[in-house]
Amino acid sequence: MNDQIFETVVTTVAADGTPHVAPMGVRYQDERIVLMPFKPSVTHDNVVATNHAVLNIVTDTRVFAGCVTGRKQWPTLPAERVPGVSLACALEHIELRLAERNDDAQRPVLKLDRVHAVRHAPFAGLNRAQAAVIEGAVLVSRLHMLPMEKIASEMAYLQIAIDKTAGPGEREAWGWLREAVAAKR
Amino acid sequence: MNDQIFETVVTTVAADGTPHVAPMGVRYQDERIVLMPFKPSVTHDNVVATNHAVLNIVTDTRVFAGCVTGRKQWPTLPAERVPGVSLACALEHIELRLAERNDDAQRPVLKLDRVHAVRHAPFAGLNRAQAAVIEGAVLVSRLHMLPMEKIASEMAYLQIAIDKTAGPGEREAWGWLREAVAAKR
Repeated sequence: MNDQIFETVVTTVAADGTPHVAPMGVRYQDERIVLMPFKPSVTHDNVVATNHAVLNIVTDTRVFAGCVTGRKQWPTLPAERVPGVSLACALEHIELRLAERNDDAQRPVLKLDRVHAVRHAPFAGLNRAQAAVIEGAVLVSRLHMLPMEKIASEMAYLQIAIDKTAGPGEREAWGWLREAVAAKR
Repeated sequence: MNDQIFETVVTTVAADGTPHVAPMGVRYQDERIVLMPFKPSVTHDNVVATNHAVLNIVTDTRVFAGCVTGRKQWPTLPAERVPGVSLACALEHIELRLAERNDDAQRPVLKLDRVHAVRHAPFAGLNRAQAAVIEGAVLVSRLHMLPMEKIASEMAYLQIAIDKTAGPGEREAWGWLREAVAAKR
């Protein structure tokens, strides 16, 4: 398996149709997408219940910063060929079907086949501010277990890339993360 | 103008056809690509001499790490509709023609029109290790002006994302950056 992990957003629906949006690091293994959600996981439960998921390739980092700061509702669109939804802001979405499941008490492995892919917008290139928001979101998701001094110094380092390379979306996302850190202080 | 800056690779050729590969932060302004190279700049001189350039959307971060560690030769392909070359590893390349030039002793502004775009490979999603290599390359490009203690602590922070999310390409790129830092010590 390629070790590379990509930060994407997985959208699923519950058996009753309720959509769920979850930022998730995924691996590509040959033609398959590999998810390893930590239980308890709504994404896991939805994939097992419906046999499907949608992988969203996203550079709108508000989704990543939003989901760790209580903003979990994002506009979705119906998937085209599987039961489910895609994220409206995805650059590309890939509709998936569950192919293999290795259950585990803590970290099950779900391998999914590609059913259909739709490209919505071009990728504009690497952006340092987007990367800083991703790192900030990782920090905020660990606010309860990291020392505040470490968080403050890493946020200060990440701020440099925000100041130099962010657009309005990254600035908004960064603001949510800074608010979350300030609220914890 | 959108403030967002994207880390791309601009390929140009000199009047005699010699190719030049330069990682560069670019802006998008409506349909135009805006380059602001610091003089002296081979890219600037080549664009002025030939009126053309190619913007390469790249996630193979070896190009970024390589260019700041003396590895400046990268495989290129002939451009399709303008005089010039594209980078063989580009996910997408956009062939450009100079439209507007505001010269400056230090930082001229070159605005280029899109002539033709070719997509070569899909974007797989954000990868934290790629972002870490970009940040490491920025640090290495400033080795002569930053205190070693700051460089060491930031490289240690970036190492976390490398360890967790890199593939072979990011690991190779990161190794070049570490060597450059070690050589400076």
